[in-house]
Amino acid sequence: MSYSRLYSLGRVHNAALRLRPCLRTGIQFRANGTSAPNRPNFPCVDAHAARQSFLESLTKRSAVSEQSAEDADSGPEPPYARPSPKSYQVFHSNEPLPLTYAPPLPSFDIAYETWGTLSPARDNVILLHTGLSASSHAASTSLNPAEGWWEKFIGPGRALDTDQFYIICTNVIGGCYGSTGPSSVDPRTGKPYATTFPVISIFDMVRAQYRLLDHLGVGKLYASVGCSMGAMQSLAAGWLHPERVGKVVSISGTARSSPSSVAMRFAQRSVLMADPNWNKGFYYDALPPHTGMKLARQIATITYRSGPEWDLRFGRKLRPPPPECTNESLDLDLPRAPALCPDFLIETYLDHQGEQFCLKYDANSLIYISKAMDMFDMTLPSLQSIKLARTDSQSDAPDDVPSIHNSHSKSHPPPPNPAPHLPDLAAGLRPLAHIPTLILGVQSDILFTVEQQRECADALRMAGNHNVSYYELGGVWGHDTFLLDVLNVGGAIRGFLS
Amino acid sequence: MSYSRLYSLGRVHNAALRLRPCLRTGIQFRANGTSAPNRPNFPCVDAHAARQSFLESLTKRSAVSEQSAEDADSGPEPPYARPSPKSYQVFHSNEPLPLTYAPPLPSFDIAYETWGTLSPARDNVILLHTGLSASSHAASTSLNPAEGWWEKFIGPGRALDTDQFYIICTNVIGGCYGSTGPSSVDPRTGKPYATTFPVISIFDMVRAQYRLLDHLGVGKLYASVGCSMGAMQSLAAGWLHPERVGKVVSISGTARSSPSSVAMRFAQRSVLMADPNWNKGFYYDALPPHTGMKLARQIATITYRSGPEWDLRFGRKLRPPPPECTNESLDLDLPRAPALCPDFLIETYLDHQGEQFCLKYDANSLIYISKAMDMFDMTLPSLQSIKLARTDSQSDAPDDVPSIHNSHSKSHPPPPNPAPHLPDLAAGLRPLAHIPTLILGVQSDILFTVEQQRECADALRMAGNHNVSYYELGGVWGHDTFLLDVLNVGGAIRGFLS
Repeated sequence: MSYSRLYSLGRVHNAALRLRPCLRTGIQFRANGTSAPNRPNFPCVDAHAARQSFLESLTKRSAVSEQSAEDADSGPEPPYARPSPKSYQVFHSNEPLPLTYAPPLPSFDIAYETWGTLSPARDNVILLHTGLSASSHAASTSLNPAEGWWEKFIGPGRALDTDQFYIICTNVIGGCYGSTGPSSVDPRTGKPYATTFPVISIFDMVRAQYRLLDHLGVGKLYASVGCSMGAMQSLAAGWLHPERVGKVVSISGTARSSPSSVAMRFAQRSVLMADPNWNKGFYYDALPPHTGMKLARQIATITYRSGPEWDLRFGRKLRPPPPECTNESLDLDLPRAPALCPDFLIETYLDHQGEQFCLKYDANSLIYISKAMDMFDMTLPSLQSIKLARTDSQSDAPDDVPSIHNSHSKSHPPPPNPAPHLPDLAAGLRPLAHIPTLILGVQSDILFTVEQQRECADALRMAGNHNVSYYELGGVWGHDTFLLDVLNVGGAIRGFLS
Repeated sequence: MSYSRLYSLGRVHNAALRLRPCLRTGIQFRANGTSAPNRPNFPCVDAHAARQSFLESLTKRSAVSEQSAEDADSGPEPPYARPSPKSYQVFHSNEPLPLTYAPPLPSFDIAYETWGTLSPARDNVILLHTGLSASSHAASTSLNPAEGWWEKFIGPGRALDTDQFYIICTNVIGGCYGSTGPSSVDPRTGKPYATTFPVISIFDMVRAQYRLLDHLGVGKLYASVGCSMGAMQSLAAGWLHPERVGKVVSISGTARSSPSSVAMRFAQRSVLMADPNWNKGFYYDALPPHTGMKLARQIATITYRSGPEWDLRFGRKLRPPPPECTNESLDLDLPRAPALCPDFLIETYLDHQGEQFCLKYDANSLIYISKAMDMFDMTLPSLQSIKLARTDSQSDAPDDVPSIHNSHSKSHPPPPNPAPHLPDLAAGLRPLAHIPTLILGVQSDILFTVEQQRECADALRMAGNHNVSYYELGGVWGHDTFLLDVLNVGGAIRGFLS
């Protein structure tokens, strides 16, 4: 069976694997206190094994029938290369792509989607960058009417106004949605790269995007726009090609990944890599690490939302007992026994988020892209250490040394308690000194904290940027605010771009 | 081989298992760009397998030699029942212990340690409650000179002054340090309870402690003192036995576990229960889920410390490359390639914390006790639902209905944005209305947030408690502040107790 069909069937079957946590532990002591205890059930653990068995049965069942149809030499089909309907275009480059930490990638694909109409002068392009696991399908298109991840932000009169702009959204290299990544076939071996894929950086993603822009004949972007990891790319685009970026929008991003965000992503990678199915990344001819992916997504989800939202949405409510469990309460006058498997609504929510995701995304892509986020650091010493080449002459930055007193107006005095690395960050951001930049953050975001938003705005001002627009949003949605708060996020972007 | 010896040897061997992350991925493209890529090494993944093999070899090697010496009928020895030196006393009760969610536990042990001298009137007793994985060894004793987890807070002239007080610290039921828990032998079967152990509550832990106090002839405590989960027990003691508690100290605790803290603990339980070694809790005659424990501890560690501390302590520093890796950089003019295994110091720190812990604590105890924390909720509806019996007549609470306007003085006006559950929490805390209570929290704590500290103090005041001392600490240590900030935490306790 082809890998992508396996995934697609796995997704459909997800509903059938849903937990039915009926029997619980903790009710083993019968009234007489002497009968032998029953071994409890753990449906949340059985779910992993059931998923594994189901995926195995799919593979075996179809192995014979597909044997003749498939080209035996082609190797396993990459998991996400052929979604149905195929909604993106692919630009293939045979020119090597320089990489930050490794020799150049000999060739690569970039998959992308577009909205709106390219102006004759090709000067109305907005490059939209995705977050960690998002695809190029930011909004519905005629090719693919499915709702996109930023559906309400793209369209006529919306934040990214398709009456005015031509919007391009790419799948990043390293990912698994059609652009070259660990699940792609290595032309040298005819097999998926797996973990022989080189470690990539945010800058590498952007360099690949600019190769696409070159191919499309787009010189200067009207704007580079991104949220979360997309915001990192947006800032990186301004740094690599200051003369080719009109405006930069950074929503809930950062110019320097903090140790706590590294810690959160490390925890996710650790559980994923500990899944025996991961097999050091070489799982493309076997079953993927679905359990590790589920556990990783559970952890990630904790960082995407906020405690206050969960207090409002779930509080301490327990899941309703399934109908088939009503006889479970025994004869004793005891309160409902808590389950060690998900029982609180917050637990079933996290479990569901993990279950929904565990076959949707390539595990190696998650590892590589999450590592790229960790490595992102625009302080000058860090940029110098990776020896990146920029396209401009570096003469466009102000001559004066970045200074804590270099704020652009009386309304924005120097920060009272600047982080020790702030001057280095300002020095690193000097190439963006002349690019109007919108920094927008959310006070309830625990992954890209509001302190990091302030730091980014402060550093840009210290670098001499007199056109930094800065907003902080309230609300309880945490990091996910950029997906949800159309009024405030969309409004700020529309105002800044107009 | 006995289970406890296995653990003890495993601990010693931990050092030998330390990661040596030398080879890295991301450097596979040689200068000529055509050679076949090498499969990368993942020492952080190999470490799990190495730990497993080592533990297996220990078991096999000693199986023959111990066969004759061990009583074949006694079943496997519980893992932590016999630490060396055995530093605690054990109180065994044959009277059933009522449980919140299950029929009574027919018999149980409580292990405990003491410091100071019991006064003739037995009126100088401080009951010190432990956090999740702490043992009764809070400070060194003549029996066990090893440093305790609260060493600097206990002793002559210290926060808990042994010149004045007789301090008792117990190991909670459900744990694995000598008190009855999942690793204890079920008298009905002669085998460890494993997950047939009943789900327990914080109140059950306290009821067991009071059975010990009864046994020791201690009527009323001078004070009930606890940090983290110990603070929950401290409040629960005041609720169950208001007439037997002189003062309550709650450091970095809560009266109502929040959904986000449940989420954090759920993530830990999930990775632990997904470890095949866990085997639904029945691992006492095999190898423990050491990988799951390591992963769970990594997640827990993220919740114990704070981002600002990590920024100061680790920043974005990378581990130094091991000496044997110096030839690794190949011939290319490339920056150091990032490793997918731990590379940042924050990652090696979390890895180390997980490695150190993974054989130190019983996995089932972690699951049961973490669940007890999740279930802790002192709002009145929750307390009513679990039908707890209290020892007093409930006449000691003020007659008036808890009210948001019931703050005890002009210096503490009603909270401006009370949580919807605050009145219910105040109603639940009414039995503590006449117990002087110290609530101390830490602003950088992300597990027991400062909002929860304020909520607890507000609710106590609303309940009519006119003796609520409330402090918030700054600093960067997060939840772990209670272990580290002797000056401020210790000072507040000493002042409150005197």
